[in-house]
Amino acid sequence: MTVFLNPDWNKMKALRIAVVGYGNIGRYAVEAVEAAPDMELAGVVRRSAATSAEEAKQLAGIKVVTDVEQLGKVDVAILCGPTRSIPETAPHYLARGIHTVDSYDIHGESLWQLRSDLDAVGKKHNSVAVVSAGWDPGSDSLLRALLLAMAPKGITYTNFGPGMSMGHSVCAKGKPGVKDALSMTIPTGTGVHRRMVYVELEPGADLSAVSAAIKADAYFAHDDTRVFAVPSIDEIKDMGHGVQMERKGVSGATQNQLFEFRMTINNPALTSQIMISCARAAARHLKPGAYTMPEIAPMDMLPGDRATLVKTLV
Amino acid sequence: MTVFLNPDWNKMKALRIAVVGYGNIGRYAVEAVEAAPDMELAGVVRRSAATSAEEAKQLAGIKVVTDVEQLGKVDVAILCGPTRSIPETAPHYLARGIHTVDSYDIHGESLWQLRSDLDAVGKKHNSVAVVSAGWDPGSDSLLRALLLAMAPKGITYTNFGPGMSMGHSVCAKGKPGVKDALSMTIPTGTGVHRRMVYVELEPGADLSAVSAAIKADAYFAHDDTRVFAVPSIDEIKDMGHGVQMERKGVSGATQNQLFEFRMTINNPALTSQIMISCARAAARHLKPGAYTMPEIAPMDMLPGDRATLVKTLV
Repeated sequence: MTVFLNPDWNKMKALRIAVVGYGNIGRYAVEAVEAAPDMELAGVVRRSAATSAEEAKQLAGIKVVTDVEQLGKVDVAILCGPTRSIPETAPHYLARGIHTVDSYDIHGESLWQLRSDLDAVGKKHNSVAVVSAGWDPGSDSLLRALLLAMAPKGITYTNFGPGMSMGHSVCAKGKPGVKDALSMTIPTGTGVHRRMVYVELEPGADLSAVSAAIKADAYFAHDDTRVFAVPSIDEIKDMGHGVQMERKGVSGATQNQLFEFRMTINNPALTSQIMISCARAAARHLKPGAYTMPEIAPMDMLPGDRATLVKTLV
Repeated sequence: MTVFLNPDWNKMKALRIAVVGYGNIGRYAVEAVEAAPDMELAGVVRRSAATSAEEAKQLAGIKVVTDVEQLGKVDVAILCGPTRSIPETAPHYLARGIHTVDSYDIHGESLWQLRSDLDAVGKKHNSVAVVSAGWDPGSDSLLRALLLAMAPKGITYTNFGPGMSMGHSVCAKGKPGVKDALSMTIPTGTGVHRRMVYVELEPGADLSAVSAAIKADAYFAHDDTRVFAVPSIDEIKDMGHGVQMERKGVSGATQNQLFEFRMTINNPALTSQIMISCARAAARHLKPGAYTMPEIAPMDMLPGDRATLVKTLV
């Protein structure tokens, strides 16, 4: 199935997008904005100019600033900094009437707290925050909601990997004595995972202290976590990842309805693409406030006119 | 993953649901309403009273009427009649301020036309129509939209079956000379299907005339369709069905992102469950007008308070 859009639809005003942060996600977000038919890159917001020759090459022709005000009119800010920076960063943009999309990745209470806080800021300043727009939380969450609507009783298992978890890797890298880190997620079935954490230590750092600090963090505390020292993280890095989601449930009074979703993807490429698609929903369709992905109609994430989308996609 | 709801949420007013039509979908819709924690069955609307002892037993304790006005206050009418009755039936309810959910199953122009027509009626009378709420069109459509948001370039293949297509079976049954019919959908890969149509003929009916009439219908005209006469449809009936959806696409500039969704389900049980979940979205969340499933946020289809859903599902 392919959707061939009415060429007139994108005569509507292009959305101006700022990419905030230029790590893994930020780089791929720039590519996703450039591939979107109804968006233009206003620029990249980061603390400093290019830090390497490779980065300078990637950023050639892109406006790089330290404050979003320097980019002129911006519709949406794609927040690509670390998860724990989001609660502080997002209101800065929302208060200026700039919509935000983040991929905050800690499930549960803190995610609800962030959504509630940004909902208030957005409603006050007429802006939209899409919270936790990645793949899990994100598109997986949307799928879990859909499966629950299709078979309300039953259990959904989300099995991750094998693959590198960016959130967990950044968390491990943040511990004292760690120069670089990579956290691999290993599925052991029925939604249970092992975390294999590879750390490149600073000179003189103690592996057992590092290991204890990582295991005590809320990111890792609930999983079987094993920490290993390696000479180089760069040598083992691969950004492929995967998911297998399963639900066996009941529709009405009918048992044994079976559902399965699998994907094998480049992790930052998918995360940033989802963020860009959610930016479209934020700027073109949603009312002020904050939303998680299952609270957004998927068609609102797509470019194109409604008639063409309904005729070709539904 | 299971969602344990805050027990207070369903102290909100139960939705009163009318099931209109009592064929396959209607029967399962009654079960789905009875299983829903926030709904009650107002009654069944049909042309006549129970037509068999088995039906009389199923309908025991259920109010059966010929006009929805006899059911008192009704929030949502679940339209379980044949697809081609929907354009005429739905406005009757919408004009009375009763939301409707149908599973209109002809893709393309006529689906868009129905959505446009019901959108106008709904907006005029302050009611909501959810159009084509089944699994295809329906939940598959929502998933196609989500996959497009995740990997905008690429091809999605939706492979159906093997399984009985209710819409195609009803269509074949409607041809002159056909007493009963069953249309099996056979997947032949990359979204191409063969239709194997089994017909129980009326005495004296001519198989070649029946076959020509079936093959000429828009339901069948685009597929390899083969028609066979059998002595009894009842003997071969099985309502299991399946889908395998595949997408290989591009996120941003990253190729080869792979997605696959599979399900094996009881067809009318899933269709009616999805209709009931969409009834909740119609009555509790959507603004007046008409919607297809990809235009609805999946969380709006679920019972429960937002905080609990976000904390446990996202």
